[in-house]
Amino acid sequence: MPTFNAKVFVTLKPSILDPQGRTVERALSHLDHANVAGVRVGKYIELTLSGERAEVEAQLADIVENVLSNPVMENARWELEEAREVAGA
Amino acid sequence: MPTFNAKVFVTLKPSILDPQGRTVERALSHLDHANVAGVRVGKYIELTLSGERAEVEAQLADIVENVLSNPVMENARWELEEAREVAGA
Repeated sequence: MPTFNAKVFVTLKPSILDPQGRTVERALSHLDHANVAGVRVGKYIELTLSGERAEVEAQLADIVENVLSNPVMENARWELEEAREVAGA
Repeated sequence: MPTFNAKVFVTLKPSILDPQGRTVERALSHLDHANVAGVRVGKYIELTLSGERAEVEAQLADIVENVLSNPVMENARWELEEAREVAGA
């Protein structure tokens, strides 16, 4: 059964305040990085799924929408790629 | 002065335990997603920097290494791309 590596990116929607990002931005500005703006802190989740591609894609879409993100406040996108087999010597 | 959009991905090193990821994994297994494994939860940070490309690259490398990640426990990588100008009508 093939194995897939998934990468999930969860970001706050642009209209939602991001206090963590603001704090990072302020800290950076005190560290002489005043040219940095628009800091937004989101989540990056890696996971591995086994199964056939079509099923895994549907399953991942469900997981991202219903478990890993809150669609009211967050946007999420994901990438899926088949894990490479260990090549023979 | 050009503006650049940066994306930063911070992940725990593979040898570091990830309780948050384990919790997500257990929750998924209770939700009939038993084929999911290796869940690791990291950070995804977006920021905008203005300046010349060479300076911005050096600055971002410094920020990622010293502010946004803890090199003892975390790996970090980043992508930088120039923000597109708003095209004239």
